[in-house]
Amino acid sequence: MASNLVWKLCRPIVFRQLASLRSGAEIRNFSSSDPPPENISRYPVPYKKDLPHDIVDLMEEVESKGGFLPNVFKVLSHRPAEFRAFFSYYNELMNKETGGLTKADRELIVVATSVHNKCLYCVVSHSALHRIYSKKPTLSDQVIVNFENAELSARERAMLDFAMAVCRCDTITEQHFQSLEDVGFDREDAWDISAITAFFAMSNRLAHLTDMRPNLEFYNMGRMPRDKNKDKGNVKGE
Amino acid sequence: MASNLVWKLCRPIVFRQLASLRSGAEIRNFSSSDPPPENISRYPVPYKKDLPHDIVDLMEEVESKGGFLPNVFKVLSHRPAEFRAFFSYYNELMNKETGGLTKADRELIVVATSVHNKCLYCVVSHSALHRIYSKKPTLSDQVIVNFENAELSARERAMLDFAMAVCRCDTITEQHFQSLEDVGFDREDAWDISAITAFFAMSNRLAHLTDMRPNLEFYNMGRMPRDKNKDKGNVKGE
Amino acid sequence: MASNLVWKLCRPIVFRQLASLRSGAEIRNFSSSDPPPENISRYPVPYKKDLPHDIVDLMEEVESKGGFLPNVFKVLSHRPAEFRAFFSYYNELMNKETGGLTKADRELIVVATSVHNKCLYCVVSHSALHRIYSKKPTLSDQVIVNFENAELSARERAMLDFAMAVCRCDTITEQHFQSLEDVGFDREDAWDISAITAFFAMSNRLAHLTDMRPNLEFYNMGRMPRDKNKDKGNVKGE
Amino acid sequence: MASNLVWKLCRPIVFRQLASLRSGAEIRNFSSSDPPPENISRYPVPYKKDLPHDIVDLMEEVESKGGFLPNVFKVLSHRPAEFRAFFSYYNELMNKETGGLTKADRELIVVATSVHNKCLYCVVSHSALHRIYSKKPTLSDQVIVNFENAELSARERAMLDFAMAVCRCDTITEQHFQSLEDVGFDREDAWDISAITAFFAMSNRLAHLTDMRPNLEFYNMGRMPRDKNKDKGNVKGE
Amino acid sequence: MASNLVWKLCRPIVFRQLASLRSGAEIRNFSSSDPPPENISRYPVPYKKDLPHDIVDLMEEVESKGGFLPNVFKVLSHRPAEFRAFFSYYNELMNKETGGLTKADRELIVVATSVHNKCLYCVVSHSALHRIYSKKPTLSDQVIVNFENAELSARERAMLDFAMAVCRCDTITEQHFQSLEDVGFDREDAWDISAITAFFAMSNRLAHLTDMRPNLEFYNMGRMPRDKNKDKGNVKGE
Amino acid sequence: MASNLVWKLCRPIVFRQLASLRSGAEIRNFSSSDPPPENISRYPVPYKKDLPHDIVDLMEEVESKGGFLPNVFKVLSHRPAEFRAFFSYYNELMNKETGGLTKADRELIVVATSVHNKCLYCVVSHSALHRIYSKKPTLSDQVIVNFENAELSARERAMLDFAMAVCRCDTITEQHFQSLEDVGFDREDAWDISAITAFFAMSNRLAHLTDMRPNLEFYNMGRMPRDKNKDKGNVKGE
Repeated sequence: MASNLVWKLCRPIVFRQLASLRSGAEIRNFSSSDPPPENISRYPVPYKKDLPHDIVDLMEEVESKGGFLPNVFKVLSHRPAEFRAFFSYYNELMNKETGGLTKADRELIVVATSVHNKCLYCVVSHSALHRIYSKKPTLSDQVIVNFENAELSARERAMLDFAMAVCRCDTITEQHFQSLEDVGFDREDAWDISAITAFFAMSNRLAHLTDMRPNLEFYNMGRMPRDKNKDKGNVKGE
Repeated sequence: MASNLVWKLCRPIVFRQLASLRSGAEIRNFSSSDPPPENISRYPVPYKKDLPHDIVDLMEEVESKGGFLPNVFKVLSHRPAEFRAFFSYYNELMNKETGGLTKADRELIVVATSVHNKCLYCVVSHSALHRIYSKKPTLSDQVIVNFENAELSARERAMLDFAMAVCRCDTITEQHFQSLEDVGFDREDAWDISAITAFFAMSNRLAHLTDMRPNLEFYNMGRMPRDKNKDKGNVKGE
Repeated sequence: MASNLVWKLCRPIVFRQLASLRSGAEIRNFSSSDPPPENISRYPVPYKKDLPHDIVDLMEEVESKGGFLPNVFKVLSHRPAEFRAFFSYYNELMNKETGGLTKADRELIVVATSVHNKCLYCVVSHSALHRIYSKKPTLSDQVIVNFENAELSARERAMLDFAMAVCRCDTITEQHFQSLEDVGFDREDAWDISAITAFFAMSNRLAHLTDMRPNLEFYNMGRMPRDKNKDKGNVKGE
Repeated sequence: MASNLVWKLCRPIVFRQLASLRSGAEIRNFSSSDPPPENISRYPVPYKKDLPHDIVDLMEEVESKGGFLPNVFKVLSHRPAEFRAFFSYYNELMNKETGGLTKADRELIVVATSVHNKCLYCVVSHSALHRIYSKKPTLSDQVIVNFENAELSARERAMLDFAMAVCRCDTITEQHFQSLEDVGFDREDAWDISAITAFFAMSNRLAHLTDMRPNLEFYNMGRMPRDKNKDKGNVKGE
Repeated sequence: MASNLVWKLCRPIVFRQLASLRSGAEIRNFSSSDPPPENISRYPVPYKKDLPHDIVDLMEEVESKGGFLPNVFKVLSHRPAEFRAFFSYYNELMNKETGGLTKADRELIVVATSVHNKCLYCVVSHSALHRIYSKKPTLSDQVIVNFENAELSARERAMLDFAMAVCRCDTITEQHFQSLEDVGFDREDAWDISAITAFFAMSNRLAHLTDMRPNLEFYNMGRMPRDKNKDKGNVKGE
Repeated sequence: MASNLVWKLCRPIVFRQLASLRSGAEIRNFSSSDPPPENISRYPVPYKKDLPHDIVDLMEEVESKGGFLPNVFKVLSHRPAEFRAFFSYYNELMNKETGGLTKADRELIVVATSVHNKCLYCVVSHSALHRIYSKKPTLSDQVIVNFENAELSARERAMLDFAMAVCRCDTITEQHFQSLEDVGFDREDAWDISAITAFFAMSNRLAHLTDMRPNLEFYNMGRMPRDKNKDKGNVKGE
């Protein structure tokens, strides 16, 4: 089946990202069980037995590697075909290995633009990912309140200014590109910044539709410096 | 290759839609040649010879069946992997055969929300599609100026009110769903309306990034009642 | 009667403008009869027999020369004294022969500012006039969606920037005038731009009050290149 | 000449209104001479000797009867033809003797909507007229700050709510008319409210263009209870 | 009691300010009695006999020296502890003798920012104080309508631009400070401008809560040039 | 000195609140030293030796009891007199023992309104206090992104709706009070909600002026369930 093949391509990247969730070791102390599915979406969340095999396979791998299954997988599985399109696109944008954006940069764009769109799920989950990738435990909280006075580098600020212009559907001009180029980004980076912003413009709206709720694990991920000893224990426990 | 397989799945639907473009017979009088590629995007538009075969195949089929190749295909081919994800998703949303939304409904949602986002490409191209599907040559022009006093049915008005709430990232409440249900839509229709709105929230922003220009053919498509004789002539001329 | 005399002064110009409507030859194919009066305004549209002679005379001349009577004449005749004041003012602004603004410029100002005000009647009717005067069949459609990325000259852009500042009641400063002068406009042109914008600020609001509907003829006027042979026929018929 | 005839028709009404300015008796204490013309407009104010006779005649009558010449007459005389159209229209709307709106109502509409448009000239001059017509020396000051908590009757509030909807170019619906009818206005009153609002939407923008400055006399007119003896003198002089 | 001691410190300054209210001599002609307390606040206004002695003492001194008791004293006495905190803070900000801001400057800041917040009480009372301190009887009326085209010095304009940025919760940057320094203000002045703006951000909201109504005396204070003879009479009466 | 006496009154309450900060036991792991003073404010932060004794005494008590000194104490000590007024007022509003608002309610109001004002310091510090008082570790994060779909009770939602109306300077009407009364609040609670909102309207703006930075301790306070053993230790220390 074609759909399985698509997943074969994108899974490795999904898993790579999901695995990084585990670095938020303290999440073990927080919540051992997800809230019942009916609380995470306004729409029915399918039982695994009713989902296509490729989607179940993906979910199980994600959960076993990442430690928990982000609710967006559950919520969007209500529409399996759209689920596949959504995560294929997501992988192209968020997990690519080339270009001038770091993983932390990508997450910061998601946080800043999703705050503008008042999207609870995306802000909470992607600020967690930003804390982990950036190893800066407070920067995303600052950006959530006001990116204009957050402790950003000039490069990060220019990146978010561009992302916010795209987020607001401002008419993009050469001046916008020039501001990016002044801090070292090129036009392909501009496309990356914009495509991420655009994808989450979509994602934020799906979250509003479904009233998608973030997993409790996300709230605290990446906030505390890891205790070396505790980490070892966790690794053993796997 | 997986990517080819995806296209095998989605092509029939793409073609079905593109074929409908031909019903705008008067476009033959308008422009026989596309503007040079450099005028349709701020980013380089690849030569066919540099594009992956699956994308070229698709483009050629679309062009031969629809009479011209919408510029969005050319502009987004700058990023082949994202191109595939974009059009896979597009097909799931715009060409599905089930649910309460007609093709004209889907296009009307795109027009109304893309106007809000000031997206030239999407407004011009999808108002053309709306004229063709709806056989109402002036309704999309009305919606472009002000959907609130356009000649809409109560059902269409509720549909656009919901779409605009999603477009603006309003917090969606049960009241929003109730307003849809009052005119006969169900929750799956609400998802369709929202997913289309969300997808074009993304698409509009990509068009702003690239300064994507609509094909001249779109401006006049579906405006004039078709001349039976001329139509025959056109069919002959194919 | 004074009112007749005023009309004697302004009629020639009105007719000159209305006559230009005929150049949109394809409108003959579209609609042979106006919608019934009750559909074009929220207020009663008077029967001709109940209107003052000077207004009837004007309407008949306009209709015979232009091919159809724009609905604004019918709708505003509900208040004959205001009708006379409105069209006297209109003529001073839109039909003057002096100054740096072309007829197409004037119509473009009306289109851009009326879109901001979401005025269906003025956008549809004056984008038709712009297409005819400018012989650019797509520029007004672009301005309707987003004047910021329409294919405007620097001169047109500065003109619309100034008009939009007046339209929004921004506080006008010397800098605004300087931007006009940079592209060759003088202070009298600034007055013309502003007075047109101001007049349509009024006109747009009257259209909202009355729910004034555009004649169907306007939607397609000026969109298609004229057929030489048909044109000849029209010229004969004049 | 037609233009003289128009003025013959509208002068009596202009004078009637201007005469009422004199009832603000305290203005005599304030300023005996207008600021030099160059301070009241960004555009040249013509010398009387350069103006058409009909406009000079009008200005002199206004000044002799009203005690001073409102600057709008001077500023707009820069364009005599537009001057005539402007004041003809003004008279139709502000001085009509029929319908459900009092003179104070009309001025209150001008004040509330001109504040929204941040128009110094119209707010200062028409709040003066409101104080005189209404004999309420503080109500316009309240409306200038916030019409929502001003000491308005339910009728006045509904009137201003409707005017503000027109002022903002809201799409007017049957519900708007119903709210007026609930307090006793009919559809013709709705037209009057809207036409005044629309006319000052134009007027406010002309004032912004010209940076029109109010006569000093307006600031204090109608604020103080009149001194009976002084009043008698004024009555004699009329 | 500590509260008495606080008042001993701040009273002299309060009285100094209140005394200046008397310079608006014409207020005697206007209203001899306050509206009944129930009309000045949505909350109960305590009887003097029920108020703490320190608050009654203050009120009586204010009234005897200033000629009338501003309603804010009555309205906020509903909460005596908050009353003390409010007026202590007020005195620190509005009556300090040091720094680059004049008393008129301080009042102008209050007027401009309170208009933005649509606060009837603060606009009416502090525009009165501005007229008295500045001896400019019309400037505050101009600022109320539109501070951007009021007859302000460059220094006043920069001051209000900064205040409005603080009022709107803009993110304050070095550029904001630079604009103040360009016209001669230093960083301590910037603090003063901001603290006044911030205090009235609070005060405006308390006025909205309580629907606080201005004393009638404020509307006309400082508008008229003082009559020398009448002034003497007033001085005698003290 | 009066100032000392004021502090004698308000200190016990300040300390009671500050002590509660200590319950966030995990903060010990985070940062043992404050950032240097120059990083917490745009204005100079005084050395202790240069501050009035009453302020130093207060600071030392707060630090010893609470575990760290919130930066707002350091930043505002730049202006000792305003410091005293600020904290006196703060205590009246935030630490009162009467009325229908819990401590968690008060903090939630601060969080929701300070987010609207994009105030980094107040959002970060008061969301910490909310987590501690409410024992709900994620609710403030939800409110920060979008209070409209946070997991609030009907009572909390009505409270925040009222607070946001005050925060935005909406004109408050009886309907606003009715909505509070529908969930059990009375008019004195409405005053409390509004006064807190109003005070932080001020506080947010002072934080913007000074670019006040939150102590690192605040970011994580109250997020983790407390370790019983560690807690015992803390209790001993109290």
